[in-house]
Amino acid sequence: MKAVIAESLNTLKVGDVELDPPRAREVQVRMVAAGVCHSDLSALNGTIPIVFPTVLGHEGAGVVEAVGEGVTQCKVGDLVVMSFVPNCGTCFHCVRGEAYLCQAVPPSGKQVDGTTRLHRDGQDLNAFLALGNMAERVVVPSINVVPIDKSIPLSAAALIGCGVTTGVGAALNTARVEAGSTVAVFGCGGVGLSVIQGARIAGAARIFAVDLSAEKLEMAKRFGATDVVPPGEDAAKWLTKQTGQGVDYAFEVVGNPAVADVAMRATRRGGKTVLVGVGKLTENVSVNALIFPLSGKTLCGCMFGNANPRVDFPRLLGLYRAGKLDLEGMVTRTYRVDQAVEAFEDLKKGSNARGVILFDDP
Amino acid sequence: MKAVIAESLNTLKVGDVELDPPRAREVQVRMVAAGVCHSDLSALNGTIPIVFPTVLGHEGAGVVEAVGEGVTQCKVGDLVVMSFVPNCGTCFHCVRGEAYLCQAVPPSGKQVDGTTRLHRDGQDLNAFLALGNMAERVVVPSINVVPIDKSIPLSAAALIGCGVTTGVGAALNTARVEAGSTVAVFGCGGVGLSVIQGARIAGAARIFAVDLSAEKLEMAKRFGATDVVPPGEDAAKWLTKQTGQGVDYAFEVVGNPAVADVAMRATRRGGKTVLVGVGKLTENVSVNALIFPLSGKTLCGCMFGNANPRVDFPRLLGLYRAGKLDLEGMVTRTYRVDQAVEAFEDLKKGSNARGVILFDDP
Repeated sequence: MKAVIAESLNTLKVGDVELDPPRAREVQVRMVAAGVCHSDLSALNGTIPIVFPTVLGHEGAGVVEAVGEGVTQCKVGDLVVMSFVPNCGTCFHCVRGEAYLCQAVPPSGKQVDGTTRLHRDGQDLNAFLALGNMAERVVVPSINVVPIDKSIPLSAAALIGCGVTTGVGAALNTARVEAGSTVAVFGCGGVGLSVIQGARIAGAARIFAVDLSAEKLEMAKRFGATDVVPPGEDAAKWLTKQTGQGVDYAFEVVGNPAVADVAMRATRRGGKTVLVGVGKLTENVSVNALIFPLSGKTLCGCMFGNANPRVDFPRLLGLYRAGKLDLEGMVTRTYRVDQAVEAFEDLKKGSNARGVILFDDP
Repeated sequence: MKAVIAESLNTLKVGDVELDPPRAREVQVRMVAAGVCHSDLSALNGTIPIVFPTVLGHEGAGVVEAVGEGVTQCKVGDLVVMSFVPNCGTCFHCVRGEAYLCQAVPPSGKQVDGTTRLHRDGQDLNAFLALGNMAERVVVPSINVVPIDKSIPLSAAALIGCGVTTGVGAALNTARVEAGSTVAVFGCGGVGLSVIQGARIAGAARIFAVDLSAEKLEMAKRFGATDVVPPGEDAAKWLTKQTGQGVDYAFEVVGNPAVADVAMRATRRGGKTVLVGVGKLTENVSVNALIFPLSGKTLCGCMFGNANPRVDFPRLLGLYRAGKLDLEGMVTRTYRVDQAVEAFEDLKKGSNARGVILFDDP
């Protein structure tokens, strides 16, 4: 079967690989669609450390073809969305309703038992985040699989597995944006657009989009931004002037400490700044030791939109079905699996809100 | 009448001053008790900028002797606690229930109209935070005054005006500590002890006290700490080992970025770190750009314990009357007004949980 393989640093190839059947508590899924997410590029270019060769992809949807022993989450024929964050249901965090921090993360690139189901010419291959969703078929841990309603198109549902849930969840779960509030979103890629959608769904009165790209700002307006901060303006000053006090909620969706600083300054006293973007281990966001406590602000780290996959995937897909969450509109281009190299080139250029690889129906 | 005057940098004197009667929306109070708070020392030593000469004190209670025109909050004979944070009821923050960020802060050292009621030999004196509570009588803005039940001893009630509300409020309002949770408090002075009391009242299962002083740690145990972190241990590692994951809530009550860093590391994934201590404008707390978002932690700035004086003062005094909040125990020494210099010496040494100046009944 075909898979998209990170062969070595910055070297991507579409090639044939072999797949073992599922073992206990594993699920075999025929893939229908896989999102092309920035984290896949980060794995390819070394920002996220992986062991090569690795089959990429961690955001996707498909149909269950086989289940291993002891699988209760789903059955053959179910439509499923994969979650790169597992939801074991039994760890310290899962039992507290904090599945986004689930501790049952498999060893890097492997399944839970430390081995892989992917091989090529007798050599083992890894699966990015235990999923490796950019392949015609995958075997994944059952705790990473969420069954969904059969009426949902899988090409749209695929996006739920990572970027959309992170962004919408940042607004709905992490910040708990309420109706009538003011929101600023710094960075309007796929995740930023999802934050904008989340804020719109929550009824925010004004949603300000901030980005260097005029094209992304246009896109932001389509997804619910009511205003865009004019490029070249000092965003913190401009937003404070526009709102009188600063925004109630600011979202940093870039992963850049300098942007986080602007976002915090754009937030009103008593408001919340949410760090959705992930920066480098060697970098720090600076919080002033005097102003921050006296201004009563809050800084929230946002992991996976504080989402519980088995609760929030159906919830977001319900919003999709109700016409409130636009998923199709996020997909600005689809690719066949043998166009994966091109998909990654487009990802580097940032030319898609979301690119999606569609697999042929066998 | 006698008052405690910061004459110039680091020069404190008890002397006679004259007081004008209250103008519109001002209240004259005969002081019964005034807390000796670290912020008074910060004003005296230049950490908090003031214009000398200034009558110190911003935490106190007394009896209303006269009210100016248009005062509706209280009447002659009422027992009142003063709040250094006003509660105008009409600004952007007050109408949102965020009185701790009330914008009706008078010009530095003056009353709301920009003038002062304090004089000496024809010279104007300032009142620290518009209150200047270390005087036998004060005239203060009516929005800084909260009437309380007549059954409450004023020597205890005085503490409510600043440190106790900040600390207890940090636990109850800012962090919203819940029953059964784990809490660490870094810094066990008057405010830190109040955080410990707040966590105990909220039903925290384990409350860890961290301080360099063995004496303060003993005090911490008296107020509800269940454990003390052994001095010399790496507090973050020790607390993580003790709790398995790190504490649910950590409170930094020192104002030191290095301590804030330890507090954040001692907090579990998904937990909250609260910055109660105020550091220097030139200093920053560093939040790792990778670990902080991925660990889903929250950093809360805490201004005045997120308290609404007119709601939280009666609430805390209700807890006092119910035997749940220990106020008398916080007062480790009382002083007569002419012992104020000694009271500040003790404050510098940190020898009291709280010192209180008691005024003679005239």
